[in-house]
Amino acid sequence: MIVGVDVGGTTIAAGALSADGEVVVDASAPTPGAGTGGALATIVALIGKVIDQSRHRGRPIDAIGVGVPGPVDAALGRIGEPVSHVPELAGHALAAELTTRFGLFACVDNDVNALALGEWMFGAGRGARSLVVLAAGTGFGAGLVLDGRLVRGAVGFGGEFGHAPVKFDGPPCWCGGRGCLALYASGRGIADAARARVASQAEAVLLRAAGGDPMAITAALVFRAAAEGDSLATSVVDEACQALGAMIGTVVNGLNPDVVVITGGVARSLALLEAKLLGAAGEYAFPRALAATRVTIVPGEKRHGVRGAAALALYARNSNAKDS
Amino acid sequence: MIVGVDVGGTTIAAGALSADGEVVVDASAPTPGAGTGGALATIVALIGKVIDQSRHRGRPIDAIGVGVPGPVDAALGRIGEPVSHVPELAGHALAAELTTRFGLFACVDNDVNALALGEWMFGAGRGARSLVVLAAGTGFGAGLVLDGRLVRGAVGFGGEFGHAPVKFDGPPCWCGGRGCLALYASGRGIADAARARVASQAEAVLLRAAGGDPMAITAALVFRAAAEGDSLATSVVDEACQALGAMIGTVVNGLNPDVVVITGGVARSLALLEAKLLGAAGEYAFPRALAATRVTIVPGEKRHGVRGAAALALYARNSNAKDS
Repeated sequence: MIVGVDVGGTTIAAGALSADGEVVVDASAPTPGAGTGGALATIVALIGKVIDQSRHRGRPIDAIGVGVPGPVDAALGRIGEPVSHVPELAGHALAAELTTRFGLFACVDNDVNALALGEWMFGAGRGARSLVVLAAGTGFGAGLVLDGRLVRGAVGFGGEFGHAPVKFDGPPCWCGGRGCLALYASGRGIADAARARVASQAEAVLLRAAGGDPMAITAALVFRAAAEGDSLATSVVDEACQALGAMIGTVVNGLNPDVVVITGGVARSLALLEAKLLGAAGEYAFPRALAATRVTIVPGEKRHGVRGAAALALYARNSNAKDS
Repeated sequence: MIVGVDVGGTTIAAGALSADGEVVVDASAPTPGAGTGGALATIVALIGKVIDQSRHRGRPIDAIGVGVPGPVDAALGRIGEPVSHVPELAGHALAAELTTRFGLFACVDNDVNALALGEWMFGAGRGARSLVVLAAGTGFGAGLVLDGRLVRGAVGFGGEFGHAPVKFDGPPCWCGGRGCLALYASGRGIADAARARVASQAEAVLLRAAGGDPMAITAALVFRAAAEGDSLATSVVDEACQALGAMIGTVVNGLNPDVVVITGGVARSLALLEAKLLGAAGEYAFPRALAATRVTIVPGEKRHGVRGAAALALYARNSNAKDS
């Protein structure tokens, strides 16, 4: 049994993963606000709780995996910057701290790298040689497994396709870049785009649906309004699908993986738009490359994050075993 | 010694590569026109010539590598479609045909995969774990070595970032896609863009430089006119640098390699614009990821293609040795 901890912007979730990929114990807590300094304590408390529960069931834990937002130096288990949502973790050698605290092998990596390993070992990419996970949540992350190996890159940025440009002459992104996929297809980007458009349309249906408050517009609300035929919301959703389709084209032509998994919180809304999304991807990808790739939409669930985090530890142990 | 053959659109070049990466014998011939059916015979004749020359020098050949434009099923050594410029090769199991003909281990792969291996084993990427080659020639190819492995992808499209979109709402590309990098930063794309702009400007300096014939405008001419201050040519060159900078941002953020090599025929012109190109890349890439990546411009030379093709055979033999 392996403990997985998924450190999200609103919730820290933990559980124990069995060898067949099932998450059997769950514990979670709200993510302490930035500056309160409670994130590390919460992570430690949740791990302790899962270890205890699992031991009581006669299934002792033998490793810990933690997925965090932002880049991680996986070799050192040290968290880099920026760690969106949980800034207090930046600079922590969290893996070593957890090993010291619990006496167990511990492994820390980017949360979407974790998702990618979880999908590859236990989910939609099981048995594939290569898979790309595109995770549309509040932000936009991505993770790559190519030829059976996680692509971490030189300094842990491997897989940051959410902040790769889909429009080279596009507007500035909050990341400091420009024309990024996240501007068009993340929850934040979709909500921002809708807010910008209602600003000039006081009578917009979407604005009324948000009680007249632009800040109350969420990506989920935009998708719902589009499904109900609102033209402003539809234009935002169409652009999201087109931009995400372009990124699917980029990864299909550039990496030609066996599987592309679209997941994250926004994927639940995208699942209803699968035909539109695949149609958009088909405008960019080579037909023969796209035909060889299975593109699948997996609505994000908390247990996927926990499963992925535990998969980090499994993957790291397997890699160590192979290297030695 | 290994024979390398680079099958280009205008020239087929062959040579023998020594263990230290030097190309010591050269032979080349014009690529027979499409439909004449002479490409295969030319490849065989050039290989025979290099084998004879090398044997006379007392350095027998023990393997053959061939780089061809277009996707290749490397496991079967079978050339896929489309093979731009040399359509008669499509469907050939060229590796097996060459082994039968010469009694030597033979290996066929995409020409830019070959370039990537050549740069990784003997060139600008020597010693790197991961490298991305972006090759701006008449068309635009790319090749990836990640964690010491060539990324071929599920059906041989791995590395086709030249036909990944840099502008999701961009115009159609000749490949059937849309907003592709090749539209902006390949020789063909640059010449086409300039032709489209001079069409509405009968007095354009660039048009006069081309003797009044839009079809005589080449990418080299556009770069030269831009260097001389022509505003129309400058706008085309600026767009090429911006789009290529965006793709550098995509690969730096998404793959975070140690080295990015910009090469191909257009790279000679780009070498004079390095600051502009790196400035553009900096608009898209995470600063810390870009700082960890060495971006280098290597003007394309025929011997790089030959060296890369031979590197294909070296790499394949090493991989086979590891697997068995």
